[in-house]
Amino acid sequence: MPSKPSAVILLSGGLDSATTLAEAREAGFSLNALTIRYGQRHAVEIEAARRVARALGAVRHVELDIDLRAFGGSALTSNTEVPKDRSAEAMTHDIPITYVPARNTVFLGLALAWAEALGAFDIFIGVNCVDYSGYPDCRPEFLRAFEQLAGLATRVGVEEHGHFRIHAPLLKLNKEEIITRGRQLGVDFGMTHSCYDPDPSGIACGRCDACRIRRSAFDRLGLSDPVAYVAPG
Amino acid sequence: MPSKPSAVILLSGGLDSATTLAEAREAGFSLNALTIRYGQRHAVEIEAARRVARALGAVRHVELDIDLRAFGGSALTSNTEVPKDRSAEAMTHDIPITYVPARNTVFLGLALAWAEALGAFDIFIGVNCVDYSGYPDCRPEFLRAFEQLAGLATRVGVEEHGHFRIHAPLLKLNKEEIITRGRQLGVDFGMTHSCYDPDPSGIACGRCDACRIRRSAFDRLGLSDPVAYVAPG
Repeated sequence: MPSKPSAVILLSGGLDSATTLAEAREAGFSLNALTIRYGQRHAVEIEAARRVARALGAVRHVELDIDLRAFGGSALTSNTEVPKDRSAEAMTHDIPITYVPARNTVFLGLALAWAEALGAFDIFIGVNCVDYSGYPDCRPEFLRAFEQLAGLATRVGVEEHGHFRIHAPLLKLNKEEIITRGRQLGVDFGMTHSCYDPDPSGIACGRCDACRIRRSAFDRLGLSDPVAYVAPG
Repeated sequence: MPSKPSAVILLSGGLDSATTLAEAREAGFSLNALTIRYGQRHAVEIEAARRVARALGAVRHVELDIDLRAFGGSALTSNTEVPKDRSAEAMTHDIPITYVPARNTVFLGLALAWAEALGAFDIFIGVNCVDYSGYPDCRPEFLRAFEQLAGLATRVGVEEHGHFRIHAPLLKLNKEEIITRGRQLGVDFGMTHSCYDPDPSGIACGRCDACRIRRSAFDRLGLSDPVAYVAPG
């Protein structure tokens, strides 16, 4: 039996990236999970990433520290207040203040570095353009431009015409569809963590954009979200 | 008098990036120097970067740690032996084992993140395709693909049609030309550090590719390299 091809999967520990990791497993890849700790306040996400990587059978899990706070520019990486209870309109269409400048470019660049070192050509990222249309680097044209770049940026791309593929299996799914798909693939969402602003013990706030999008999706599906929240649902 | 536009300049502390920083100063930019410590063995380079940033009047100098050793794959970031006394042919045409996978993609991604946070559209990188033709991510087509990506990857690129420019002023210069240009711009090359394998006190080896290319360029110009070497010239 030939060995499985390797893929690098960006894994934050949230619901989306856990489902993405499960998609990579389903597609038959050997799983190399990459968690980037970028100075965000919710370190509890890292614990979630570890649990998810273990549960889904990742062969390697690299946690990389990179302190994007040095650059400023986002609530997720600085001490600015995380917005709470925003309108659905604002949540889906504005670029959120939790936007991290060029984040996915940095993340995909790191995933590409690891992929090249591993001899892998497949990178998975859990972006979607439905719930987070405000993030420019979640759009299909961005992902295609990155694939283009990857071929030019690497030894295998240039010398051996290796073609990198950026897989974004959630790209066109809304949160309900992601949850449904994750359940089909056997993801235990109780292991995941989505909140931008957990309390000191790591409990999700229930009121930031990430919590509200997640909870209302479980609600609409008639399911109960297996994670605990500070604010009642 | 209007304030100067800001630029982000990748500054390793070597001869090339010092000259690049001087080019950005000459072009009238306010200088934001970015030094990335990527787990390389020659930390003495960081000291060089600090001296150069100070001497050339950078308004900000961010040093970012990122441990690319986690990915393996290069002599510069692992404990593999740095090659010595290679032929000129091998030095200029093979991809060196000191190649770091996708390094410039990661570096430009980080520079882009900072540029976006600063409201800057200009990024300088000291790559050249003459002495280092073996590195795929030093080629003009790679730099153009990154510019393309930057417009799609950022809030200002998408919402305000901001156009990022990747400046590579050394792209077509050989080492003698870089040294000549740096001297015109007032760079003190005694502050720089190029060696891949310095001795414990930080003295350049004189025998790795970086040292040999540098020394022979000073020789051909009839100049003496102001840095000290372990191996006699």
